[in-house]
Amino acid sequence: MPAFSFHLHSSDGGARAGVFETPHGPVHTPAFMVVGTQAAVRAMTPEQVRATGAEVLLANTYHCALRPGEQLIEKLGGLHAFMRWSGPILTDSGGFQVFSLESKEISDHGVRFKNEVTGDVMELSPERSIQIQNALGADVIMAFDECTPYPASEAQAAAGVARTLDWLERCVRAHARKDQALFGIVQGSTYEALRTRCAEGVLQHDLPGYAIGGVSVGEGHELLCRITAHSAPQLPEHKPRYLMGVGLPEDLIAAIGYGIDLFDCVIPTRYARSASVFTSRGRLRLTNRRYRRDAYPIDTSCTCAACAGGFSRAYLHHLFAANEVLSAILASIHNVHFYQQLVRQAREAIQARRYADFRAEFLESYQRG
Amino acid sequence: MPAFSFHLHSSDGGARAGVFETPHGPVHTPAFMVVGTQAAVRAMTPEQVRATGAEVLLANTYHCALRPGEQLIEKLGGLHAFMRWSGPILTDSGGFQVFSLESKEISDHGVRFKNEVTGDVMELSPERSIQIQNALGADVIMAFDECTPYPASEAQAAAGVARTLDWLERCVRAHARKDQALFGIVQGSTYEALRTRCAEGVLQHDLPGYAIGGVSVGEGHELLCRITAHSAPQLPEHKPRYLMGVGLPEDLIAAIGYGIDLFDCVIPTRYARSASVFTSRGRLRLTNRRYRRDAYPIDTSCTCAACAGGFSRAYLHHLFAANEVLSAILASIHNVHFYQQLVRQAREAIQARRYADFRAEFLESYQRG
Repeated sequence: MPAFSFHLHSSDGGARAGVFETPHGPVHTPAFMVVGTQAAVRAMTPEQVRATGAEVLLANTYHCALRPGEQLIEKLGGLHAFMRWSGPILTDSGGFQVFSLESKEISDHGVRFKNEVTGDVMELSPERSIQIQNALGADVIMAFDECTPYPASEAQAAAGVARTLDWLERCVRAHARKDQALFGIVQGSTYEALRTRCAEGVLQHDLPGYAIGGVSVGEGHELLCRITAHSAPQLPEHKPRYLMGVGLPEDLIAAIGYGIDLFDCVIPTRYARSASVFTSRGRLRLTNRRYRRDAYPIDTSCTCAACAGGFSRAYLHHLFAANEVLSAILASIHNVHFYQQLVRQAREAIQARRYADFRAEFLESYQRG
Repeated sequence: MPAFSFHLHSSDGGARAGVFETPHGPVHTPAFMVVGTQAAVRAMTPEQVRATGAEVLLANTYHCALRPGEQLIEKLGGLHAFMRWSGPILTDSGGFQVFSLESKEISDHGVRFKNEVTGDVMELSPERSIQIQNALGADVIMAFDECTPYPASEAQAAAGVARTLDWLERCVRAHARKDQALFGIVQGSTYEALRTRCAEGVLQHDLPGYAIGGVSVGEGHELLCRITAHSAPQLPEHKPRYLMGVGLPEDLIAAIGYGIDLFDCVIPTRYARSASVFTSRGRLRLTNRRYRRDAYPIDTSCTCAACAGGFSRAYLHHLFAANEVLSAILASIHNVHFYQQLVRQAREAIQARRYADFRAEFLESYQRG
């Protein structure tokens, strides 16, 4: 029995519904991974995260390595035990974070940077990223890649692809745990030929899953759709496809249509903390004066603990105005639940072979408001 | 059937165990009221508060009147509906807060001060405090009294007693809701003769409960004990006795011995946010380096959602270091649960007529560490 398997139950056009089995349980796809950057989802207990329907979390290798350090987490039983999340976890490689740092030195070996917690000079390389991810012990770990900034020249993007493929080889060699699935990542910025070349190179390695990276870096909805529509079908049908760092509800709905199975994004929790909440009729900003006396829950049709619990928009408006932590807690519960409901409804629509109708109905309601 | 009743089940020396019935359910005494200053307990959902065993909350009239305003809360169904707490609630009078303001004008009519939210000049008087508390709709409301600062001269304290008694008359006349219990408050600073005179005056009014105020203002454990030992027995046996704003576990344990039934304090939640947590063996500061690698929960014998949930001291140390909101959530759950367990154990010890032994055992373990 392999530790990982992916079964497609249904498809509808490009959209797919399936289940990705991991050592810590199944992930029903399309799935949205809730981000717990520092081994914690902001303002939510694991129990509250689970109650939204979430099956899988993402933790950031860069942040966990800086604080509290992967050795401490390993000593305490790995990420699952440390953060008390018994379901599947994915760690990113840290590449996105170190390439985003202002002060860094990039070489073929890896990326040198200053540890913002201790002030020490640190290096992330393919070997080091995999070593950290092996210690953290997530179910899925990601290849250390070069995340080309946007916009990038074709030459820049081509160099990024070459390095990404070179580094993937080193990641595969460095990876030491059979109970963790290593995913490869397709880069290539907005250049379709480069994306194709990168996909071909990545697919030289028979991996349990593949990702599309270098998106959600400022390219906007249309370019994101073009990249995804181009790259998703180039990835194997019977392996999970992960679109990294995406995104807004309309991005997810489009990308699922192109055959994406996995997503992650900080948007639901980050927006929640700034009072921006998602509803079937669009987004609301709870700090807006119009909600001061509004006795309705965020979304009357929502079954999350905040809406079903009867907390009114007026109460949430008050909590945000009064700077009460409960504002972030309730809004985060709601937004994470909204994202989980969105992917659950997408799954059901794919299974019913009515994904195009679902997408049109969702967008009609969501964008009209 | 009266809206309020108080039944003593057992007593042991001065200590009493009973039940205070309110329109929103029973309060088993001795009881600790969790403070939700701005109509929210900091960093906890009502469900999490309830799960600690808490039966009753306190909300602050001053803060609720400033923001969002009592009229809004009344329009939205009162405090219970607004903050989604279906159990009993008590509101203080606002007196303690306005007397603590730096800039205020005190007269026989009331206290004028600047609204720190809107900048408007506002006044709290006996009539206005009761009007606000009637609008907020808590089960128990408190008389508007003069909270004499500590230390106070005997003349100052005597003037405060005279005004407190005058204002109590006006509060009783102003109170307009039979479904709310108005409690009178005994002042008198550290002067026993004044405390006695004030108690006699307050007891001229047949009220559903009485409080001892003007404590927890810097007088320290010993003076607090002396005041409580003096005043508690002067209050009627068959009415609940509330010691306002108290306190640390050792204060509660002592005051229960003198016959106190109700307590409130911000300590469990405030200390939690600064990483200070209570255990049967004393207090810990989770930010201390010694907990960096500590795999044990806060208190191995504790059944709260944080300890029973398996969150380690090392994880909490990390959450505090990383400034994650979950640190405050888990530590608050633990501390509120600790206080609820403390009063529950006190009740059980009184019922078993072994309160003196319980107190000695608790202090032996708690103070030895």
